[in-house]
Amino acid sequence: MIKKMVLTLAVLCLVFPAMAFADDPTAGTLNMGINSLWVMVAFVLVLLMQGGFILLETGSTRMKNAGHVAGKTIFTAGLAALVYWAVGYGFAFGADSSVNGFIGFGDFLFDPSIISVDDGLPTTLFFLFQLAFAVVSLSIAWGGFAERAKLSSYFIFTIVFIGVIYPIVAHWIWGGGWLAKDGAQDFAGSTVVHLSGAIAAFAATVLLKPRIGKYNKDGSANEISGHNQVFTALSVLLLWVGWFGFNAGSTLAIGDGFFGYVGFTTMLGAGAGAVAALLISWAVNGKADITTMLNGTLAGLVAITASCAFVEPWAAVVIGLVAGVLVFYSAKFFEKIKVDDPIYAMSVHGAAGIWGTLANGIFATDELASKVGVGQGGLIDTGSWHQLGVQALSVLVCGVFVLVASFIVLAIIKYTIGFRVTEEQEIIGLDLSEHGAYGYPEQLKKGQGIQG
Amino acid sequence: MIKKMVLTLAVLCLVFPAMAFADDPTAGTLNMGINSLWVMVAFVLVLLMQGGFILLETGSTRMKNAGHVAGKTIFTAGLAALVYWAVGYGFAFGADSSVNGFIGFGDFLFDPSIISVDDGLPTTLFFLFQLAFAVVSLSIAWGGFAERAKLSSYFIFTIVFIGVIYPIVAHWIWGGGWLAKDGAQDFAGSTVVHLSGAIAAFAATVLLKPRIGKYNKDGSANEISGHNQVFTALSVLLLWVGWFGFNAGSTLAIGDGFFGYVGFTTMLGAGAGAVAALLISWAVNGKADITTMLNGTLAGLVAITASCAFVEPWAAVVIGLVAGVLVFYSAKFFEKIKVDDPIYAMSVHGAAGIWGTLANGIFATDELASKVGVGQGGLIDTGSWHQLGVQALSVLVCGVFVLVASFIVLAIIKYTIGFRVTEEQEIIGLDLSEHGAYGYPEQLKKGQGIQG
Amino acid sequence: MIKKMVLTLAVLCLVFPAMAFADDPTAGTLNMGINSLWVMVAFVLVLLMQGGFILLETGSTRMKNAGHVAGKTIFTAGLAALVYWAVGYGFAFGADSSVNGFIGFGDFLFDPSIISVDDGLPTTLFFLFQLAFAVVSLSIAWGGFAERAKLSSYFIFTIVFIGVIYPIVAHWIWGGGWLAKDGAQDFAGSTVVHLSGAIAAFAATVLLKPRIGKYNKDGSANEISGHNQVFTALSVLLLWVGWFGFNAGSTLAIGDGFFGYVGFTTMLGAGAGAVAALLISWAVNGKADITTMLNGTLAGLVAITASCAFVEPWAAVVIGLVAGVLVFYSAKFFEKIKVDDPIYAMSVHGAAGIWGTLANGIFATDELASKVGVGQGGLIDTGSWHQLGVQALSVLVCGVFVLVASFIVLAIIKYTIGFRVTEEQEIIGLDLSEHGAYGYPEQLKKGQGIQG
Repeated sequence: MIKKMVLTLAVLCLVFPAMAFADDPTAGTLNMGINSLWVMVAFVLVLLMQGGFILLETGSTRMKNAGHVAGKTIFTAGLAALVYWAVGYGFAFGADSSVNGFIGFGDFLFDPSIISVDDGLPTTLFFLFQLAFAVVSLSIAWGGFAERAKLSSYFIFTIVFIGVIYPIVAHWIWGGGWLAKDGAQDFAGSTVVHLSGAIAAFAATVLLKPRIGKYNKDGSANEISGHNQVFTALSVLLLWVGWFGFNAGSTLAIGDGFFGYVGFTTMLGAGAGAVAALLISWAVNGKADITTMLNGTLAGLVAITASCAFVEPWAAVVIGLVAGVLVFYSAKFFEKIKVDDPIYAMSVHGAAGIWGTLANGIFATDELASKVGVGQGGLIDTGSWHQLGVQALSVLVCGVFVLVASFIVLAIIKYTIGFRVTEEQEIIGLDLSEHGAYGYPEQLKKGQGIQG
Repeated sequence: MIKKMVLTLAVLCLVFPAMAFADDPTAGTLNMGINSLWVMVAFVLVLLMQGGFILLETGSTRMKNAGHVAGKTIFTAGLAALVYWAVGYGFAFGADSSVNGFIGFGDFLFDPSIISVDDGLPTTLFFLFQLAFAVVSLSIAWGGFAERAKLSSYFIFTIVFIGVIYPIVAHWIWGGGWLAKDGAQDFAGSTVVHLSGAIAAFAATVLLKPRIGKYNKDGSANEISGHNQVFTALSVLLLWVGWFGFNAGSTLAIGDGFFGYVGFTTMLGAGAGAVAALLISWAVNGKADITTMLNGTLAGLVAITASCAFVEPWAAVVIGLVAGVLVFYSAKFFEKIKVDDPIYAMSVHGAAGIWGTLANGIFATDELASKVGVGQGGLIDTGSWHQLGVQALSVLVCGVFVLVASFIVLAIIKYTIGFRVTEEQEIIGLDLSEHGAYGYPEQLKKGQGIQG
Repeated sequence: MIKKMVLTLAVLCLVFPAMAFADDPTAGTLNMGINSLWVMVAFVLVLLMQGGFILLETGSTRMKNAGHVAGKTIFTAGLAALVYWAVGYGFAFGADSSVNGFIGFGDFLFDPSIISVDDGLPTTLFFLFQLAFAVVSLSIAWGGFAERAKLSSYFIFTIVFIGVIYPIVAHWIWGGGWLAKDGAQDFAGSTVVHLSGAIAAFAATVLLKPRIGKYNKDGSANEISGHNQVFTALSVLLLWVGWFGFNAGSTLAIGDGFFGYVGFTTMLGAGAGAVAALLISWAVNGKADITTMLNGTLAGLVAITASCAFVEPWAAVVIGLVAGVLVFYSAKFFEKIKVDDPIYAMSVHGAAGIWGTLANGIFATDELASKVGVGQGGLIDTGSWHQLGVQALSVLVCGVFVLVASFIVLAIIKYTIGFRVTEEQEIIGLDLSEHGAYGYPEQLKKGQGIQG
């Protein structure tokens, strides 16, 4: 009898817990579901940042180019989706690498066979999230093309940048490549996304030369104002909102809600950048400059991007404050050396991207690094210069690689099919010359476009 | 003693697992919570698409009508919420049906008594998600009304379309109606939402006739450009972003993250549509046309909507490419037959909606259909023409129904209170004639509106 | 042998359930993760509302002030983040209170030590959500400053309002303060956020006096139209979308999906406000006024904010309808008493905020209040005037406090550094006078700004 009882009990003991959750998904499935949802939300927020870029770039340029500038963002995002699917993803995250640590290889024409799961996240969502990052980097690069590049150059550069250049950098730092092994810490892409885009923009401006009318014969610069500050202010808000997908989403998992901490430091960095930039322009120029303040907000966001999971709140504020001041002087510097950068890509994403990557080596704490699960503390917490050195190396290597690669591609474009539109085309504007119609036909039809 | 041990153990065996999760919600509650969150996110994204429609419609029309066009979207969305709550939801998803399979009946003045749950999802969230879909269909229909319909016609048509016409089609395919029983596969609404809206727009254009100045006496067409391509480009981005709620959200559940796959094919369809449309316009017209490219992006999204959960990545690319080419020729076709469709509703949502619904019958695979849990593979995977026939039938039946119903309602409006504004009102613009003030008072106050 | 069996079984009975979930997070962790995700989503939606305020405020004002109006929203949001972090959060939610129930004290320079959890939600996310609410209240207050206040006044008022005034009201109702103990019910902030902002705006308009040209010598009012109704319509859509984070997110937890119910009543309130306002303006003025309709939509949302979790669907519709009518007459009233309120803050957020708070005391039901877990039913459900009295008291107390505090701060500004720009500066516009450049340089460069 007791034997029977024991056996019954044995069965019960196995069946009951299973039964209790019989109709329910297991906690493991639930966990994967939640992570999937978080990454989907984060992907959508990062994709929304393209709306920010449409407004930032059109608002910072002239009416005669508005349709071209806005439309090409949609077009290149679409092309990027196909190219990243066909080759880029495979170079960044493909498993097999012929040259170890330099480039991924595999998963071309990515076919995830419905639900293939990696680390508790469907690969389809990992793909979408990474694609959205690549497109952000691309849209940053367009800053250097603005108001003078031919449409065909956008087409070709999208293919090369999304297909090869960006994936290689992403592989080095995020795909298990050699910089990752070396200990580079770039939580959400101050280097991978922002610096890469800014350096590509720099290569473009050097090859394109300044816009007509930007510099006088005596070398002094003219202000070519963007046409719509409502667009630029709204763009900053959309980018700011999207950045919570960008930074906090880079956790790729819900865990215990640590992504909230990442969002918290992101908010402080942005606020500090806005305040510092407004005050420095007010103090130096005597007028609070809207464009500088908007750039400062973005610079704060760019700078905190590498460090958002690694630093304490006070350090996030310091990183943002420095970024806000830096972007003001950086823009002055680039104007002085005759780099015509209408969207301030080099200052907002370049200078602040470098600062943010280095700042990780200064302000990261061991406690937070161990929470993130990779990396280590920086100069202040550990007293060691090691991490700062690693960060400097990663900036240098990635910067040089993207510069050389972009320069070669764009130089080939320049000396074959041509990179810059003709003088006449630039004066009438790219809307008419590249697309055959104004973006603002009612406001420009009386030939006002020629004034700009 | 052993007996006591066994009894103790028996209690322990029951209590321990229960105890382990005592303070915690059960996995079942958690699952419902997560599904609720996903559908809330998806609803919000679909509602955000109204921002896309505001910008798409204003950007594609003239300055003198901008306030009217933008404002009526908010107004009709608000009215639609009340009408769908009062009657529409009951016809679409009400349980009792007097005519079996044709229409739902019940749940009028929908009162969900706090938490009534259906299939692991609170009905309040199901209601919100379905309402947002209905409003998308309505906003598509407005494309056919643009720049010449009276405000009162918007009022009346919202009531009839949201109260009766759209709910009937939704019931047929998604509410367990006769087309659902027949096996029609329309994952997220290429037919239900997009084709229905486009057909209603078509009925309106036929009754309204073309805008003043669109056609010359010799039958040739004039281009009436929209006034703001920044708005149209941004609109496409907002719609694109919202589409991830629209398509991926239609899973209505988190499950194992399959909605990521749905988002993945959606992205490929959009990208392919953008690229194909730009290239075809470049090749045929000699200039890359921004409007065509934007329409191609949307057409890719519309076409993949029916199939996003049913097809492999390569097929998603093919569906998008075809949609991008189709939208270009479709727009030419409608212009030629003198259908004046300022927002391209018939091409973007109509032609691409039909193509997308049929494509499901061609490219769906048995493997994915079984993952979705309904439906079956199409021509290529199964070799059978059956599903393609079912899809064609559902297009035909829904199209004819919406056409006849919309035509009757709009004809009654036309021959009673009047559908179109007077010639004078149309020339001065609807902002002044229907609302008494310009939407852009500073830019139009010098009488520029009369030129447009 | 049996003893061994029993012992084996005992071990099994303990190990098996533990083992089944060994690699998985516990349901408790999952629950916290989901709540974190929901609050992150809600925070992002509320932050997106700043995009709505940028468009609402620029669209409702003139071109010559557009860059200033848009830019200052970004700047003050950034400053608010720092101020709320440094002091505001500590006054609102700090644990220790020197004056019991009046103000919190603690958590200054908020440092959440990675993952500090309160009520199943990381405090970092609670901070972000509350900060976003504070910034909404601040942006409402700016309505009263529009087109005539000096940039420095924005700077100072942000510090005082976000640092002290708003946190005190938030503490009273949401921080366990004395009005909370008294039973005040304000689910998502009709009083805390909307009324506070509107009252601060009122204090500003009284001290600033009307804009030049608003009133004639005979006391009659002129219409100073905003310059862009596409912006205002889009702003309403963005605010509407964000409101689902604002209201539904105020559940702060997923639970069984009750936040869906909150979203459902929110949608009905918005729709009813839009319809009522359009119809009342159509009936009274003979023309359907777009601005009134947009204000009605927002008023419906403001009014339902206090009650969204407490009332039945029919009551939500009634609350929205009344708000839509109220906003029309309220705007007329404030114009008549010579309060120049360009963004209609006093009507949309003030009158509708008061109505919404009172409506809770009329329409709340005991059943829903017990679902929310705090509060009680109102007049109709219980027959008792008690709750309506409590609601009236909370409106009165909060209103008077914010009015007095804001008035003192702004009066000090006025009589020290100056609150209003000079007449000349106002006429040329704040873009030039405060920032040195037009926000629309191509459209205003010919001196058109002076006309406005």
